[in-house]
Amino acid sequence: MAAFGSKTDLDRTRDYRERVIILGSGWAGYTLCQQLDHKKYQVVIVSPRSYFVFTPLLASTSVGTLEFRTALEPIRNRRNKASFIQGWADNVDLYNKTVTIEEAVVDPNQGLALTGSRHEGKDQSQLQTENASKSKSGQLFDLRYDKLIIGVGCYNQTFGVPGVIQHANFLKDVGDARKIRKRLLECFETAALPTTPDNVRRQILHFAVVGGGPTGIEFSAELHDLIHEDMARIYPGLIKFTKITVFDVSPNVLSQFDSKLAKFASDHFARSGIDIRTSRRIQSLSPGLPDVDPHLQSARLGLTLQVKGEPDEGIGMCIWSTGLMMNPFIQQALSEIRRFPPNEVIFKSKVEDAQKVDWHIMQDPKTGSIVTNDRLRVLITPDGPHGAMKAHLRDVFAIGDCSVIENKQYPATAQVASQKAIWLARRLNRQDLHTTRFAFNNMGIMAYIGNWRAIVDGAKGVGNVSGRTAWVLWRGAYLAKSISWRNRILIPMYWFLNWAFGRDISRF
Amino acid sequence: MAAFGSKTDLDRTRDYRERVIILGSGWAGYTLCQQLDHKKYQVVIVSPRSYFVFTPLLASTSVGTLEFRTALEPIRNRRNKASFIQGWADNVDLYNKTVTIEEAVVDPNQGLALTGSRHEGKDQSQLQTENASKSKSGQLFDLRYDKLIIGVGCYNQTFGVPGVIQHANFLKDVGDARKIRKRLLECFETAALPTTPDNVRRQILHFAVVGGGPTGIEFSAELHDLIHEDMARIYPGLIKFTKITVFDVSPNVLSQFDSKLAKFASDHFARSGIDIRTSRRIQSLSPGLPDVDPHLQSARLGLTLQVKGEPDEGIGMCIWSTGLMMNPFIQQALSEIRRFPPNEVIFKSKVEDAQKVDWHIMQDPKTGSIVTNDRLRVLITPDGPHGAMKAHLRDVFAIGDCSVIENKQYPATAQVASQKAIWLARRLNRQDLHTTRFAFNNMGIMAYIGNWRAIVDGAKGVGNVSGRTAWVLWRGAYLAKSISWRNRILIPMYWFLNWAFGRDISRF
Repeated sequence: MAAFGSKTDLDRTRDYRERVIILGSGWAGYTLCQQLDHKKYQVVIVSPRSYFVFTPLLASTSVGTLEFRTALEPIRNRRNKASFIQGWADNVDLYNKTVTIEEAVVDPNQGLALTGSRHEGKDQSQLQTENASKSKSGQLFDLRYDKLIIGVGCYNQTFGVPGVIQHANFLKDVGDARKIRKRLLECFETAALPTTPDNVRRQILHFAVVGGGPTGIEFSAELHDLIHEDMARIYPGLIKFTKITVFDVSPNVLSQFDSKLAKFASDHFARSGIDIRTSRRIQSLSPGLPDVDPHLQSARLGLTLQVKGEPDEGIGMCIWSTGLMMNPFIQQALSEIRRFPPNEVIFKSKVEDAQKVDWHIMQDPKTGSIVTNDRLRVLITPDGPHGAMKAHLRDVFAIGDCSVIENKQYPATAQVASQKAIWLARRLNRQDLHTTRFAFNNMGIMAYIGNWRAIVDGAKGVGNVSGRTAWVLWRGAYLAKSISWRNRILIPMYWFLNWAFGRDISRF
Repeated sequence: MAAFGSKTDLDRTRDYRERVIILGSGWAGYTLCQQLDHKKYQVVIVSPRSYFVFTPLLASTSVGTLEFRTALEPIRNRRNKASFIQGWADNVDLYNKTVTIEEAVVDPNQGLALTGSRHEGKDQSQLQTENASKSKSGQLFDLRYDKLIIGVGCYNQTFGVPGVIQHANFLKDVGDARKIRKRLLECFETAALPTTPDNVRRQILHFAVVGGGPTGIEFSAELHDLIHEDMARIYPGLIKFTKITVFDVSPNVLSQFDSKLAKFASDHFARSGIDIRTSRRIQSLSPGLPDVDPHLQSARLGLTLQVKGEPDEGIGMCIWSTGLMMNPFIQQALSEIRRFPPNEVIFKSKVEDAQKVDWHIMQDPKTGSIVTNDRLRVLITPDGPHGAMKAHLRDVFAIGDCSVIENKQYPATAQVASQKAIWLARRLNRQDLHTTRFAFNNMGIMAYIGNWRAIVDGAKGVGNVSGRTAWVLWRGAYLAKSISWRNRILIPMYWFLNWAFGRDISRF
């Protein structure tokens, strides 16, 4: 039985090129893979998803303004020359330069936001037994690298609020968008049933968004458009029951934006009837509606949101978007190195005998992110009292939301991730990493706020803009940034069709 | 608590119109709903699905030639004036003219082919207890009709072959198409894993199609195109392992077609490398591969097809398309009437005292279909020895695959269903049912056979055509028959994009 077939294939097709393994297929990993010179490197991308998600368009797909696949680029396509392994990086041996991969082709949670470790609740000995059996079944296997790029991204932060992981909807991957679209339309269809009483209608058509960052705001705006452009015509009798509320723990929403723009957005929301409730703390999310007979079938769809110091809120759906949590992979697979990797480290300070101490990867004390230098190489430091010593790994890089550059405060955005990826790909292609250092070039931020209006903050040559002009910029920017010609044609086509004929509300 | 809100809404918006309840949203029900004059009738469509499926394009969507929604039309849209209740018709009281509806908004099996009764394995008393509780929770409710149109369609026939319901893929609804697309790509991605041995690759890339009718043949053709146009470029190393086999119990495939056309299709398949194995009986379908270590993860995806008198066949997927089975609704909800419905029946033969005998709906003895007269009115007949008596229900019609016309042999096709629906809608709109009788006008049949070739049998003004010309007719016909402008624009757009850039193989 010739097992490990295509590992041999990978070795055979390598042709003296260095093998670059990229972990992750998000803005960091996918961009890098697209930019690397495949004549110089054998690129292997390892990711549990078979596609890249163009995240700024997810909110649009979640209400049907765009079809789901317009926000996706498959990793495998006719042009991409990289090899792809659909799996999780389970462990990295930085000493022997191998990655342990767990295949993830048939995964029921594919395409959904990650909220907790895959290995939650298993102790070390359970994990070892499990891994031994997975190795035997060919589910777990090792792959050697010459260069490793870590771009595994972050998980969704839930702050441990009870019920959120189980009952909230997230908006980080295309499966999330699909779940939201389905649930939204289910709420309307249930409200339309002859047996649904008005007090249930009022609650299940109340949509709560937790988190007033760009994702939460754009989703609320898209939902408002769906309700007022389409649902108003399709379910005219139900519109009086609909409501959108944005909750945020801080005193303002859109704190990343200039305060005038944030105020413009808040005022626009107020005029559109979207309720923004700031300085609110969510305490729990549970199934069922307050003050409604729990046996009533239509009430079973509803949820109860407990807000500190306020009466319980009956809602139909809760979109949770309160930021990022460090990827447990960093802690589980990377925190320990112990032996000093051979021929791999360039010292930043003198070491008497690097072999005598145990080493670990540097992590940001606040967020737990991997710390890199400004050439994006991962930094390591010895355990214990040797804290002043520091070195970096020559062939291991970290980019995207799972990493920070030492002493720099760049935001965890797609823009930073893709700039890092492009910079690193150029350096590797030209082999001139030693001559230059990465610096972030802020191109501005933007958010859609509904009703064909947007806000744009600090865009090059434009500055701060709000309203319809900003909306034109917003659409233009996302169209220009779309990666494939397929999507550049489909996106405006769907914008036109859904404007002309309305959004498709079939559920399946 | 104002329960049963929109039933009141329905009553309020009725405005002295007759209420027509349509059961089903397929070719029969959806077409009728589109054609009825909403000024004359209050139309209420009851269906477990929120959309109509343009079935001829399903095979294309299952391999990604078209996006799923191009084969769908949502029942609710900006223009449709009919009311819609998403639910199952659970019972019909023909005496009191009411339908009992069970709501089905949140149904995990939504969009999947039906293979067995929802009430399978429950006895009468269990059903009664369940229904009492469902009525209390508002899940079950009654709705009065003036006219009832039964267009509930058929289920998928599995002939009780063990393992088919559990492990085969069907192709009757959009959820089926999505499952197939995902599974197909999973088979390729699993085969591409470094730990998948060649003997497993050869089996999980073997796709079996059971049933050589138009659906099975068109699916095989589309799959062949996917493999040779896209997979050959995306997974060049795997193509040598792929195989498609069509099994049929009869000695020929495409028996609906002229024998020369069927032979053309078979020869074309043979040249394309698709194996047609006729006169084969499938005995079972079970998980796992023959002669492969069952602990091997990649082998777990595979299935074993047991063919009578042949060695077991290891396959990656089995598409099951062996025809139709009568909808259990007919037996469960319609077979008994007992009391003779008042003012509702026009006699075909003299009855001494219709109230003294028990009546039942006439069913075709072979298929179990509802028998109608050639005005599509449902026929009834008394139980027991009064068999010569016969009558028809004035206000109850049956159309589509669940019905046959007495002494007529029309095929169970979309064409017959939509012609019946259009004819009936015209008669009801003009109120001239008594002046005319339905007759089927055969417009010909067609099937795609892969590699940009098709066969067309008996099309008006064209006759029998095969090859590229037939392919042009095939595409033209489906484009012309597409219902909405949205889809008439999107379908050629996707045809072009997938030809130019390849099909999208992202899985989620």
